[in-house]
Amino acid sequence: MTDQLDLDPEIRDALLRVGTAVLASQLLKRGFRNVFIAGLRPANPHCARMVGPAYTLRFIPMREDLAASGSVANPAHPQRSAIEQMPSGHVLVIDALGQTHSGGLGDILVARLMQRGAAGVVSDGAMRDSSELGALNLPVFCKSFAAPPSFARMMAADNGRPIGCGGVAVFPGDIIAADADGVVVIPRHLAAEVARDGAEQERVERFARKQIDRGASIVGVYPPNEATMADYRRWVDAGEDDKAL
Amino acid sequence: MTDQLDLDPEIRDALLRVGTAVLASQLLKRGFRNVFIAGLRPANPHCARMVGPAYTLRFIPMREDLAASGSVANPAHPQRSAIEQMPSGHVLVIDALGQTHSGGLGDILVARLMQRGAAGVVSDGAMRDSSELGALNLPVFCKSFAAPPSFARMMAADNGRPIGCGGVAVFPGDIIAADADGVVVIPRHLAAEVARDGAEQERVERFARKQIDRGASIVGVYPPNEATMADYRRWVDAGEDDKAL
Amino acid sequence: MTDQLDLDPEIRDALLRVGTAVLASQLLKRGFRNVFIAGLRPANPHCARMVGPAYTLRFIPMREDLAASGSVANPAHPQRSAIEQMPSGHVLVIDALGQTHSGGLGDILVARLMQRGAAGVVSDGAMRDSSELGALNLPVFCKSFAAPPSFARMMAADNGRPIGCGGVAVFPGDIIAADADGVVVIPRHLAAEVARDGAEQERVERFARKQIDRGASIVGVYPPNEATMADYRRWVDAGEDDKAL
Amino acid sequence: MTDQLDLDPEIRDALLRVGTAVLASQLLKRGFRNVFIAGLRPANPHCARMVGPAYTLRFIPMREDLAASGSVANPAHPQRSAIEQMPSGHVLVIDALGQTHSGGLGDILVARLMQRGAAGVVSDGAMRDSSELGALNLPVFCKSFAAPPSFARMMAADNGRPIGCGGVAVFPGDIIAADADGVVVIPRHLAAEVARDGAEQERVERFARKQIDRGASIVGVYPPNEATMADYRRWVDAGEDDKAL
Amino acid sequence: MTDQLDLDPEIRDALLRVGTAVLASQLLKRGFRNVFIAGLRPANPHCARMVGPAYTLRFIPMREDLAASGSVANPAHPQRSAIEQMPSGHVLVIDALGQTHSGGLGDILVARLMQRGAAGVVSDGAMRDSSELGALNLPVFCKSFAAPPSFARMMAADNGRPIGCGGVAVFPGDIIAADADGVVVIPRHLAAEVARDGAEQERVERFARKQIDRGASIVGVYPPNEATMADYRRWVDAGEDDKAL
Amino acid sequence: MTDQLDLDPEIRDALLRVGTAVLASQLLKRGFRNVFIAGLRPANPHCARMVGPAYTLRFIPMREDLAASGSVANPAHPQRSAIEQMPSGHVLVIDALGQTHSGGLGDILVARLMQRGAAGVVSDGAMRDSSELGALNLPVFCKSFAAPPSFARMMAADNGRPIGCGGVAVFPGDIIAADADGVVVIPRHLAAEVARDGAEQERVERFARKQIDRGASIVGVYPPNEATMADYRRWVDAGEDDKAL
Repeated sequence: MTDQLDLDPEIRDALLRVGTAVLASQLLKRGFRNVFIAGLRPANPHCARMVGPAYTLRFIPMREDLAASGSVANPAHPQRSAIEQMPSGHVLVIDALGQTHSGGLGDILVARLMQRGAAGVVSDGAMRDSSELGALNLPVFCKSFAAPPSFARMMAADNGRPIGCGGVAVFPGDIIAADADGVVVIPRHLAAEVARDGAEQERVERFARKQIDRGASIVGVYPPNEATMADYRRWVDAGEDDKAL
Repeated sequence: MTDQLDLDPEIRDALLRVGTAVLASQLLKRGFRNVFIAGLRPANPHCARMVGPAYTLRFIPMREDLAASGSVANPAHPQRSAIEQMPSGHVLVIDALGQTHSGGLGDILVARLMQRGAAGVVSDGAMRDSSELGALNLPVFCKSFAAPPSFARMMAADNGRPIGCGGVAVFPGDIIAADADGVVVIPRHLAAEVARDGAEQERVERFARKQIDRGASIVGVYPPNEATMADYRRWVDAGEDDKAL
Repeated sequence: MTDQLDLDPEIRDALLRVGTAVLASQLLKRGFRNVFIAGLRPANPHCARMVGPAYTLRFIPMREDLAASGSVANPAHPQRSAIEQMPSGHVLVIDALGQTHSGGLGDILVARLMQRGAAGVVSDGAMRDSSELGALNLPVFCKSFAAPPSFARMMAADNGRPIGCGGVAVFPGDIIAADADGVVVIPRHLAAEVARDGAEQERVERFARKQIDRGASIVGVYPPNEATMADYRRWVDAGEDDKAL
Repeated sequence: MTDQLDLDPEIRDALLRVGTAVLASQLLKRGFRNVFIAGLRPANPHCARMVGPAYTLRFIPMREDLAASGSVANPAHPQRSAIEQMPSGHVLVIDALGQTHSGGLGDILVARLMQRGAAGVVSDGAMRDSSELGALNLPVFCKSFAAPPSFARMMAADNGRPIGCGGVAVFPGDIIAADADGVVVIPRHLAAEVARDGAEQERVERFARKQIDRGASIVGVYPPNEATMADYRRWVDAGEDDKAL
Repeated sequence: MTDQLDLDPEIRDALLRVGTAVLASQLLKRGFRNVFIAGLRPANPHCARMVGPAYTLRFIPMREDLAASGSVANPAHPQRSAIEQMPSGHVLVIDALGQTHSGGLGDILVARLMQRGAAGVVSDGAMRDSSELGALNLPVFCKSFAAPPSFARMMAADNGRPIGCGGVAVFPGDIIAADADGVVVIPRHLAAEVARDGAEQERVERFARKQIDRGASIVGVYPPNEATMADYRRWVDAGEDDKAL
Repeated sequence: MTDQLDLDPEIRDALLRVGTAVLASQLLKRGFRNVFIAGLRPANPHCARMVGPAYTLRFIPMREDLAASGSVANPAHPQRSAIEQMPSGHVLVIDALGQTHSGGLGDILVARLMQRGAAGVVSDGAMRDSSELGALNLPVFCKSFAAPPSFARMMAADNGRPIGCGGVAVFPGDIIAADADGVVVIPRHLAAEVARDGAEQERVERFARKQIDRGASIVGVYPPNEATMADYRRWVDAGEDDKAL
């Protein structure tokens, strides 16, 4: 299944090679100070790196007469339709109100997302079935785990709309990138340039780290002055970086 | 302007005579534990009592390239269209993300809402122009006041959709009732019965308070046992309550 | 009704003449850093000053099958028995879990406490019936107001036991003192000496303030050095303080 | 040592085979929305699963003249008597005020609990001696670790009384169940039926997950419609589930 | 006493005529999103408007062996030297760690600041002596009131250094402006242009509000389109605004 | 490089053999209740134990015109000068305002600190480059990880000054000790006596734990009564403790 909000595979691959620390730096250079969803941890540290366009799911607080377990039997229920309709390669981003008293998704729904080609899941709240999720090879980021089902505390309101997730705006199609440092939201139209400039910044930082590990001071090296940049370019031209990888 | 979500004037008037403490009790008897938007205060304590159907406005966190002051010049901007499209008699209920670093509305927009017949405004965040708002005769409930405009920290996402406000679910058309104790959200289909039973509970409590003020113990009086209820009915039949009001 | 935890009327009157700022200073000199219940406000600013021994009431979180409105009809229910059993002159101190989604007491119960000679009420949560409470001449301190009854979110567990209130330990019989600055808990065995030394500190501070208002620097005056203390004693001996009161 | 609040070993074993996610679902079906103690983590992830009746210990905030290290030498001190009096097979549940600046128990007391046959320990605050606790085979759930002893910030008030732990009511004898998702509190009188229905729900979910892993959509499968339930019963009758375990 | 960080009286007077809501808007137009110290309230609502350069005082958490009452007898103590050294016309801005368990200043020190010509006081924590402060004619903004002296919880570290106050950077000499909406920090070099453009914005908003009060829609009026601006300029040229003031 | 705030190597080695739980107990005996920086976790659990004098770095909130990436190119920038000037053997302690939306240091700066002989790093905020830091053999304690660079949310203000870190006062030269339980701040003048008495307490606790593991009750054993202390001294004299280590 494809989608107009899909991500060019070349950009995706380029972004996958850049860490979120560098991506956040690139966005900050462009004036974006609020792109990091703080407080999340990878449920599967062994597979935390992911990149994909956002598909959004929004919860509101529970109301007792509506938040019943039966409601999820309806395929049109926003939580359930998100599972079956999210395009392949996308990341499900959940506004779970930041609450950790009930879990947004459990292992069965996440396993289904995996079958459908999801790139990952992000929630600013909790997830269920910690052990089972930990055995899946799908990147999942959340605040913590909780035993109760989502409707103990919240109700799915809609999907495919702009949301806030952990205090960060997420529009459908924004590019989500994550690794061990956490989750960064890249405005869709900046994905290509951030991928390109981020790759270069990663290389400069590898060079700087190499100098530091050899005993250099940070002065002139990080951030690099002109002399260091000249050394860097020679290093790149000599293909030293490729040997290091 | 009228609306299919309007509130029957008789129910509105009945609800206006019942305090939110009693309304919340009536809802609790029906199993609703999460209907009170905690932490809000009346901006105009002299006119805090209000009742009306909810018209919703939803904010998401700010993104620097989108949250510009120019954006509100577009009449389709959700914050601005809410001001001009909310039906008369309704209460504007704002999901302001609970944040108090920028204000959802200032005195010009609130003055316009007043002109358009609004019943009141509720926000789980801050408002601007404290002094000017305090001089208006429109009930406004918010957490605090803030000088910066809304787009310093958030962006209007849409209106007319289900929202969370201060941790409580609010659907368009739910009935909002407020007084000095704060703001209660009544599920729309329960408005009539809550108004009816609330009026009776208010009367029973007036009778109980009268007994207490005369030196009675609460035992058997509050909550009332059968003997007290018999006394109460005699008191009502004798028209004593009407004299007290 | 009297009680072994009653407070000597002379000490009570002495404490009523000392502000909480001075009482907290006296306790700090004795090594007590955690005697102030932060975050509370007087519900009746016109009658905020109170002193009396603590009578405690403890809440725990609500459980749906137990927190029913019917339960309070039983006179043995801890919230209700507190109302009828608290000795005259005492202050009801409520551990309301610091939560503000439901109110610990409403106007009927507070009116009954007044009838029974209560010195005041302190809660680290919310109260109900803001308007009615505001019309009573009983000091009440709480965090805020809330419309729902207590059992929407919590259940009374017991009374007469040591509790925490707003992060401060309160033992039955500890002396509670309050004014516009808030609520201070005085360990029972220190009441007499704190009253005595507090009265003297109040007088020294009145003298210092007088000097400041005449243009003196704080150096040597506040805190006072020996010369200032000599001036102070002359001022006291001359009866100047009595004229000022 | 036995106790009238002991748990039938058959029910305990049945509960041990059901995850907390399913137990919380079963409780939610019965109207209980607040049974999960959020924010806790297993100190010993290798042995996180536990079931047993609650034995409660309650702390209040520290007061400098009472919270001295000497006080714990008295065997009647509530923290110490809890250690020596808790019946075998029980879970020590601590109301530590949710604070993480001092630790409720260290390795010596926990080692003693283990010797005495404790089923586990739960605190809504911190514990001490992270490394030593991590080497014990006793399930311990807490918010975090802290170096200072408990009386740096709190004092044991009593044990064997109803408490709040992380915002959840816990009565002595309630059944505590925990696994990697966290800690669930089961009202004592519901333990048997929740164990029975939970076992069945676990089996239905295993079947659903099997279908999902084979590529089925969630529609009709999770939650299961009648056709799926018919398939499920055939699968059970054929003994397929037993092969899977 | 004068100071190189003094504020040009003309700019001060101009700023005093512009509300903080407009000042925050002007700063946002220049890219500053974090200039408002949220959560503060005027201790003296009758005299809340103030403008002056910041003089900073920084607290750190208390340590028992250093935070003794005797320490403030030393005139070099940072809290005390701030009182006697702050230049006339300045605003004392206190980093009180945002804590409300002890008060930064009481009435004697504030009275001395008044004598010395202070323009006002801002703290992101609590103050003491609510009643006495309320009787002074000096603008004071704080989060709440607390009875204990500052050294119950914190110690003055230094003054005259950059600080954070309520999450906002404050450099000595930055211009502090406040009114009923709260406190705004204006980077020193922007004071003149913000005063000038703010005055104009205030006038445009007065005009807009006038139109709204006459029944105009906000469309084209707020924000004003070109036609409205033409009307506005005619109104200004006709001197109508001066009549309105 | 040496420094007048260096720590006597014998005291350092002694402190390294005492756990933070015991160090905090020793400080509590001396009246210090607020020496533990709560909420931090070791970034490198495999090398969490560290001891060294504090070298402080203080951040304030970001201001858009000053918090630019270019500013760190200046070697006098406080964050950068801290890296190059901190004496060998010291611990860098960062007041990061407790915020976790941007990271104080990344792997390049930490690698440089390692080269310069740092004993460790402590921040009450986040760090960057989780994976790379995790591969270094330097103890680092922080609240969490964040991708954005520090200046996305804060600015370095100065170093070498008293700070608050996680609510605890830290003076340059105070001794920082850490292990799996977290970070303790030891007032510099108490380091020697705390090391000495802590070593003895560790030994007593090893003896107590030994008794507990053999089935002894805690009564009389922990805390030890005179009989237990006599046994303890025999055990020490017999050299049993040395065999156990």
